[in-house]
This record gives sequence, C-alpha cells and structure tokens, in this order.
Amino acid sequence: MSVALVGAGPGDPGLITVRGLERIRSCEVLVVDRLVPCELVEEAPEDALVIHRDDLDQEAVNSLLVELGRDYEVVRLKGGDPFVFGRGGEEALALAGAGILFEVIPGVSSIAAVPAAALVPVTHRGVSDRVTIASGHAADGSEPDYDALARQGGTLVLFMALQRLDRLAHGLIAAGLDPSTPAAVVSRGTLPDQEVVTAPLDGIAEAARALPRPALVVVGEVVDVRARLLARGNAVGDEAVLVMP
Amino acid sequence: MSVALVGAGPGDPGLITVRGLERIRSCEVLVVDRLVPCELVEEAPEDALVIHRDDLDQEAVNSLLVELGRDYEVVRLKGGDPFVFGRGGEEALALAGAGILFEVIPGVSSIAAVPAAALVPVTHRGVSDRVTIASGHAADGSEPDYDALARQGGTLVLFMALQRLDRLAHGLIAAGLDPSTPAAVVSRGTLPDQEVVTAPLDGIAEAARALPRPALVVVGEVVDVRARLLARGNAVGDEAVLVMP
Repeated sequence: MSVALVGAGPGDPGLITVRGLERIRSCEVLVVDRLVPCELVEEAPEDALVIHRDDLDQEAVNSLLVELGRDYEVVRLKGGDPFVFGRGGEEALALAGAGILFEVIPGVSSIAAVPAAALVPVTHRGVSDRVTIASGHAADGSEPDYDALARQGGTLVLFMALQRLDRLAHGLIAAGLDPSTPAAVVSRGTLPDQEVVTAPLDGIAEAARALPRPALVVVGEVVDVRARLLARGNAVGDEAVLVMP
Repeated sequence: MSVALVGAGPGDPGLITVRGLERIRSCEVLVVDRLVPCELVEEAPEDALVIHRDDLDQEAVNSLLVELGRDYEVVRLKGGDPFVFGRGGEEALALAGAGILFEVIPGVSSIAAVPAAALVPVTHRGVSDRVTIASGHAADGSEPDYDALARQGGTLVLFMALQRLDRLAHGLIAAGLDPSTPAAVVSRGTLPDQEVVTAPLDGIAEAARALPRPALVVVGEVVDVRARLLARGNAVGDEAVLVMP
C-alpha cells in the first residue's frame, strides 16, 4: 500500500508522463484537484474510487492521504508538478511522518510548458540566461518582494497573477523594471482554448483584462522571441500542445 | 513533413510525456543529444534513422533539422525540456525561418524533477515561495551575476555548476548569502545511480567533489525538507523515480 504523488502536467492530457499514466491505470483510489484534466481521471480503473478534493483544505487532504495510504494503492494527482508550487512537500511530510510508503513522480510544470505553448522560451541564448518563478499571490496574503523580483535580471514567470496584474506591474515598475519590458499573459495554456496576449509591462494588465484563468504571466525580453517566431511565417503545429499563432 | 521538438525528461525513461513517446514511435528520423536515455532511442521504429548530434555545433544542428524537416517526420529529442536551458528556441527560430512545420512538446525539466528525486521541493510553504534557475556556466564564459542571485531571496537551482562549485559558492557568499545556507548536489538525478550530498553552502564544494556529472545544485532552506522527510522514517519508493534516502 502506498501513495504516488503524481504530476498531471499543465493541462493537455498528453503531457502527463508515461509512468504517471501507468500509476493512474493501476490505482485503487485517485485523489484529484480541480485543475486535473478529466481525460486523465477517466484513465483510472472502472472500480477505482475517485475523490475530488475541492472542498478539503490542505490539512484534510494530508490526513486523507495518510488514511487511504494504509490500505490502498493511492494516486494523488496534482496539476503541473507536485513539487513546484504544488504543496507536494507538505503531503510527502505527512506521509513520511505516518510511515506510509510514498513516491514522487514529477510532472511537466506549467512554468516552462505554458510559455513554450505560447512560443516563449523562458531562457534563450543572448537574451536571458536565468528565470525566476514566483507566485503573484503570497500564501499569507502579503505583497511579493518587488525589489528582489525586479533585480533578478532574467525572465520572470508569475503564477496566480492575473487577478492582480495591474498591481503587480506597478510594483515591478516602481521597483525599477523598465515599463517597456515585454510581457505576456498565457491563458489556459496548452489547452485547446489557449489565448496569448503580449504588451509592454505598463500595458499588460489592461491588454489581458478579459482573459480567463488559469493564466501565467511572463515578463522579460524572451517574450519577443514569440514575435520573431510568428513573423518568420508558417510555423504551425497540431492539437493543443503548441505553436498556434 | 515536420519537426517535433520533444523533451525527453530528466533521465529516467518513464518520465517522458505520453505524447512525446507517441512521436518517437512514429518518427522517420530521430535526432538525439548525449543525455537522452537509450531506452527512448530504442522506441523509434526499426527503420527510423537515428542521428546522434554529439559532434555537431548548434548551427549545424539547426541546419540539419531544416534539411530533414523538408522531407521527413523528424523528432528532435532533447534532455529535460526543450525550452528550459535547452536551446529549443534557437532550433524553433531556424525552422520557422525556413518555413518548416514544427511543434514543441515540453518535457519534465530537471529543475524540479531532480530536486524532487532528492526529496527537495523547490518551493515549500513557509520556507520558500520562489525559485531562480540559472546556469553555473554562462554561454559566453563570463561569471554569473552573483549579486542578483544572492539577493533573489528564494531557492536557487544551478545547472552545470558542479565543476566550478567552489568558485560559485564563494561568489554567492561574497555577494551576501549566508555561508550556512543549506545546499545540496544531486548527481545523475532520477537515474538508478543517483547520489545526493548536502552541506552548508561553504562546505558543499568539498562535500560534492567526487560526484559524477550531470549534477544539479540546490541552495536554500528547502534543502532541509529532505532531512525532515528522511528523519521521519520509512519513506521509500520504487525504481528510479525515487524517494530513496
């Protein structure tokens, strides 16, 4: 009996790992988040118990996993990667503390896959050699450390930032980022209804105002690589993974 | 005829995406890097042409992909994620410029999967709410921006840093990072012969001196989550994915 903490990837069901899918297909209990693609939930065996954790807080999820892990083969399926802004560490600590066997199967994190789906490489030679990933909405409700984010000097990827993007952009500019820094918002990245908006940092909040969540914000010169790719012509892909203007 | 830029994941062949594996299984030409697992190369059809790019520089790889993409279904398989320190952007620009159809299929990047395999979540509530990823070895041979890296205030993940770790650690400490900041080196992460060493920042270079490459360096308080997980006891996993003390 054990619990596998599995990353479901950024949204497109084809972007789960081969091993993650194997675990889903052989589980007895599947505990899922709201952002997990339904196609992946349907991969569980017909007689598996599927639990949506929507109304449970993190403490309750931890306890649930410990209880289930004593008796069943459990898959805890989380959007993105369990260990990147996924609270996988908290679940792992709870399981380890209770002596439950567990494993971590990483997933494709939105941090790179979603920008990639918008034709934005988070690093690009001669443009940016580093990337900082941060939440636009601190767990304790406090403001992000604008000074540190503005000074880091590479690409900035912000999670959970759409709702307060106006405030975030102002904070970054006040801390020293150039208002003309290229920025992009990728809404529902990797999904068939993905939308991308680009604008200078001081105009991105207005430009992205109507976009649906979830969305990822990218700030930095790498955003211009997208325009170069699109300008060069007929780059197109298939399905949702990508490369659609 | 098209080129799929596919991320192979961090090393363990089970960590490629379902769609990435599909593309390999139906390609006519497979162009691979040295760090790609051989198990994935073996998934190509028997009559597929497999090209190892070892001796080719990036310009030559770009040209090769353009030429092959005119006539064949090509998979360009790269370690990790093509768009995170993977030069996927450069290959995409070359393909777009030549009017070759292409798509990007992201992979599990080492940046989170390798720390995860060492039981280190790169973000953890109450410990670190941001992560900066940088190369320990700038493309142009210059030194990293130690000031910016030391001030960013969250987890630091350094690629290609093992060989010059002593110099990097000194640079970070000189720029203001506490010498006692927890640090870890994960050698050959997610592979069966993975090794992990932890030490304070001022002792990590010495502690990790004998480790084989590739290796990833993690600096920050999240490294201590590993010790908490191990201390709590019988957390174990199977295979290479992890959770081995």
